[in-house]
Amino acid sequence: MVRWEPGAKQRLQVAALDLYVSRGFEQTTAADIAESVGLTERTFFRYFTDKREVLFHGQSELEQAFLAGVDAAALGASPLAKVTSALEASASFFPDERRASSRRRQSVIDAHPALRERELLKLAALAGSIAAALRAGGVDDPAATLAAETGITVFSVAFAQWIADGETRSLIWLERQAMRELQHAWEAAPVGEPAPAPAE
Amino acid sequence: MVRWEPGAKQRLQVAALDLYVSRGFEQTTAADIAESVGLTERTFFRYFTDKREVLFHGQSELEQAFLAGVDAAALGASPLAKVTSALEASASFFPDERRASSRRRQSVIDAHPALRERELLKLAALAGSIAAALRAGGVDDPAATLAAETGITVFSVAFAQWIADGETRSLIWLERQAMRELQHAWEAAPVGEPAPAPAE
Repeated sequence: MVRWEPGAKQRLQVAALDLYVSRGFEQTTAADIAESVGLTERTFFRYFTDKREVLFHGQSELEQAFLAGVDAAALGASPLAKVTSALEASASFFPDERRASSRRRQSVIDAHPALRERELLKLAALAGSIAAALRAGGVDDPAATLAAETGITVFSVAFAQWIADGETRSLIWLERQAMRELQHAWEAAPVGEPAPAPAE
Repeated sequence: MVRWEPGAKQRLQVAALDLYVSRGFEQTTAADIAESVGLTERTFFRYFTDKREVLFHGQSELEQAFLAGVDAAALGASPLAKVTSALEASASFFPDERRASSRRRQSVIDAHPALRERELLKLAALAGSIAAALRAGGVDDPAATLAAETGITVFSVAFAQWIADGETRSLIWLERQAMRELQHAWEAAPVGEPAPAPAE
């Protein structure tokens, strides 16, 4: 019989981050995390496949936010306008109240190459999901992939700024600023030569 | 005493790809690869840390090509112009004669999630190196990271097209086309609103 523990998942997440920061990621076991909030190791594994996964639990909600943003864009919006809408939605996932815990989480991830790798792979998967949503909305490749990857680049850059020491600007502000910066970069780029004839 | 085997590294690379395609990646050991070209397993490990690494041996030369391209850009060129120069240099690393073996290599990588992950991580590292080169040339962040990630996005998209079945256009043509497509996407994007005042 599986006993339902109200709020167990969230309590485990909070406890895990506390222990990873205070004791160290390697020095913390799933059993330690569960025990610190009066739960069993077995309960821990009902919610998370391993102790790394606790740090990435929000991934699917974040993906849902991005995809909802793509869907919320105006009919006939350009691919980058859809991506802009997705970025706005992603920012609502990270209100300023979340910044402190996002910083703590990142300090754990940055200290462990394997966690950094997992994060990069999750971001790549997120770009893939956004590209798929754009294709489903009628955008062909390579335009869909180019726009989706651009969105993840902007998100990553803005997010890294958002959690930097002393930063107080909101994520949405930083995302808009990064979008604007990229747009200006393209305006300053040399205009592409006319396409040469393909090799054949 | 270490015996010098002329051309050993390249022979091992060719033999590894042959075996990965014909026999399967999992079913091939480092000893199999070495043996198939009359070398010892010990010689294999003199050149490669493991059998996955054989597939990524070109990474540092590719990185050097990208960085040489950044350096070759005109003094005072914009960040994206430097990245364009890097893309031109990367294309010279993949002449059409290399397309068949790149396709074979990709078929092995695509069949194995762990290899796909390693490839994604190598691309992320490449973006990091380009961003560092841009910063060394006086481009601040986030502009440096935004431009470098854009370059890797264009490279990845164009490279995937280049090795697609039946594709005959050159990598440089596909890269220029992807750059143009992104530029047009930005032209079609809604002009950013004026920046709202930061939260504080």
